Amino acid sequence: MIVTLLTDFGVRDYFVGAMKGVILSRDPRITIVDISHEVPRHDIEAAAFLLDACYRDFPGGTVHLVVVDPGVGSSRLALAARLGEHVFVAPNNGVLSLVLGGSPEAKLRRIDERYMRPAAGATFHGRDLFAPAAAELALGLPLEEIGPSIGTPVLIRSPSPARLPDGTLEGRILHIDHFGNCVTSFRAEHAPANGSWAFMAGEAILDRVVSHYAVGRPGVPLLIVGSTGYIEISINGESAAEALRLSRGDHVLLVPSVR
Amino acid sequence: MIVTLLTDFGVRDYFVGAMKGVILSRDPRITIVDISHEVPRHDIEAAAFLLDACYRDFPGGTVHLVVVDPGVGSSRLALAARLGEHVFVAPNNGVLSLVLGGSPEAKLRRIDERYMRPAAGATFHGRDLFAPAAAELALGLPLEEIGPSIGTPVLIRSPSPARLPDGTLEGRILHIDHFGNCVTSFRAEHAPANGSWAFMAGEAILDRVVSHYAVGRPGVPLLIVGSTGYIEISINGESAAEALRLSRGDHVLLVPSVR
Amino acid sequence: MIVTLLTDFGVRDYFVGAMKGVILSRDPRITIVDISHEVPRHDIEAAAFLLDACYRDFPGGTVHLVVVDPGVGSSRLALAARLGEHVFVAPNNGVLSLVLGGSPEAKLRRIDERYMRPAAGATFHGRDLFAPAAAELALGLPLEEIGPSIGTPVLIRSPSPARLPDGTLEGRILHIDHFGNCVTSFRAEHAPANGSWAFMAGEAILDRVVSHYAVGRPGVPLLIVGSTGYIEISINGESAAEALRLSRGDHVLLVPSVR
Repeated sequence: MIVTLLTDFGVRDYFVGAMKGVILSRDPRITIVDISHEVPRHDIEAAAFLLDACYRDFPGGTVHLVVVDPGVGSSRLALAARLGEHVFVAPNNGVLSLVLGGSPEAKLRRIDERYMRPAAGATFHGRDLFAPAAAELALGLPLEEIGPSIGTPVLIRSPSPARLPDGTLEGRILHIDHFGNCVTSFRAEHAPANGSWAFMAGEAILDRVVSHYAVGRPGVPLLIVGSTGYIEISINGESAAEALRLSRGDHVLLVPSVR
Repeated sequence: MIVTLLTDFGVRDYFVGAMKGVILSRDPRITIVDISHEVPRHDIEAAAFLLDACYRDFPGGTVHLVVVDPGVGSSRLALAARLGEHVFVAPNNGVLSLVLGGSPEAKLRRIDERYMRPAAGATFHGRDLFAPAAAELALGLPLEEIGPSIGTPVLIRSPSPARLPDGTLEGRILHIDHFGNCVTSFRAEHAPANGSWAFMAGEAILDRVVSHYAVGRPGVPLLIVGSTGYIEISINGESAAEALRLSRGDHVLLVPSVR
Repeated sequence: MIVTLLTDFGVRDYFVGAMKGVILSRDPRITIVDISHEVPRHDIEAAAFLLDACYRDFPGGTVHLVVVDPGVGSSRLALAARLGEHVFVAPNNGVLSLVLGGSPEAKLRRIDERYMRPAAGATFHGRDLFAPAAAELALGLPLEEIGPSIGTPVLIRSPSPARLPDGTLEGRILHIDHFGNCVTSFRAEHAPANGSWAFMAGEAILDRVVSHYAVGRPGVPLLIVGSTGYIEISINGESAAEALRLSRGDHVLLVPSVR
């Protein structure tokens, strides 16, 4: 029984401890795993990326609890979902967008108010509603019993590149990691090894994907298929984001058949 | 068997790992939960607040180990305490003040030197004394056997608001959380919904407590009963502490019967 | 079954979560303990120090997984090692130097490629090779079966002080901890209580080792045997590193028989 936690609560507060206490109060045998508590405050898109980047690495039956919840206490729904063997608990604000996408296999439920635990205030649904619900699901409560079925969840914009009229693919930088690697929304198939294309990010123009960082000469940007399957812009031994002045959300272009 | 950890050790050092190793060496089945290791250095008051804010969320029998210990190696006592079903291990420097208060039900013991494990240096009682003691208590050692009874522990000032001669209640800001919410020392009963009062914090004057952040208009401060039961000053979607230039320790006033 | 993690991955990314997921997918009963994920990026020496400072505190059989791996994807080997009852998994880049030193008892193996899990990209051996190997070793796989024996691992410079022609011992600052204590490469035996010597660090000259921080007067530097057994330069209640402007790597001198 595993519950993962992904929040924007930081680690200086009592918030994460309180959520863990509630889960362990339900059953101390539940294993709790921190994915991160350093999602930028209220940054739904960042949380959606991080969750999608690692949830598959956990065993089937894991409950992934995401609390990035700017609308806490408002009328936004509390969501529980299942896709394949993975279960998700989160506010219905788009944070599950990359995981669920428009997948017809996803099962979606609203978490019933009866899982709300009596507590001070109405500001901490992570502790008072999401944690209790996640604990129940981890212990085997069927998704169908957590509350009524709902239709399409709130979705944020898809990371898929768009095709412009001239054939150029327009993607964007989805994430800048701890090492300054820039994860783009392009995947290996967008930039085939046997094709001819030009990739443009800021002032950098690149035309091939390498297999290892060590191929890169110091200071020279390279493209590499990163650990999420997305193409990343990297510089061996330094921060590509800093060197190329790239930020999350920046557009990157893939121009096919250049000559 | 759960041991929670609350320290000012940060997470860049070997300190937390060493304490966990010592606890798991006693019994690898003990579940260790981090509350926070980012208490500001030597900030006893901050640790006292964080512990009080979440210890009740853990199951009975949990041992809460707090190491914020500017006096390590001096003559300050090492404390073990029980209140209800919760057990606490900490230096006797006030860090348990909010939990124990002056409660007559609290049982207090000094941790005997025989729990000190042989180790290099005399600077790391977290690893060498508190962790071994916490592990024993988690495994069921009766509190009474950890060492001799002691009287009143060191207490820091109470968070309870003071009544000034003109009837005004003077409280203070106990904590500023990760989102910039300012937790005051006032509780819901100090500011009744059917009463007439004015709450003053910095230049802000407020006269009602709302139930949800979402009630708040952008940029406008509001009062809300937070997740600890204290009244908090918040601004929906931004940091009240920054916007109102409030700091921990600042005085806040509640003036009754304003007309 | 315990696996400790020591990386330079930070805690804002999906990296640590992904590694934990892979380990728990192999067996959810494995206990995972974070030592730190805040090793400075690619700082092999810092990781070597932190590991050596705490691995002995864990129970026998623990697998210590260190991923500070600037050469990921290059030809550097993946290493598994055993010393006494402790097992280590790390890139062969010197990160195990302080633990293994030149110890003839250390058993060293290269991790065979068959432990590489199929995954996107070749940039995340922490998830795709080291985590699976660590999980197998934690579950009891004999070290000898993980891959072929190898000879001497890559070693970084020893922390042992050097003796200069005039008899002075030249050490250096190995680590500056969260409180600003400066851990030197001198040990208690280098500065005997009954000897006459002068210790020089920056502009500070010290001639005795005290037993407790509390001995120190405010603002006055002191020497103390720290929790790793190394002599540390400290100032009671403040950061010695800041006050004395000391940095990691700085030379410190011990001049014997001063009169």
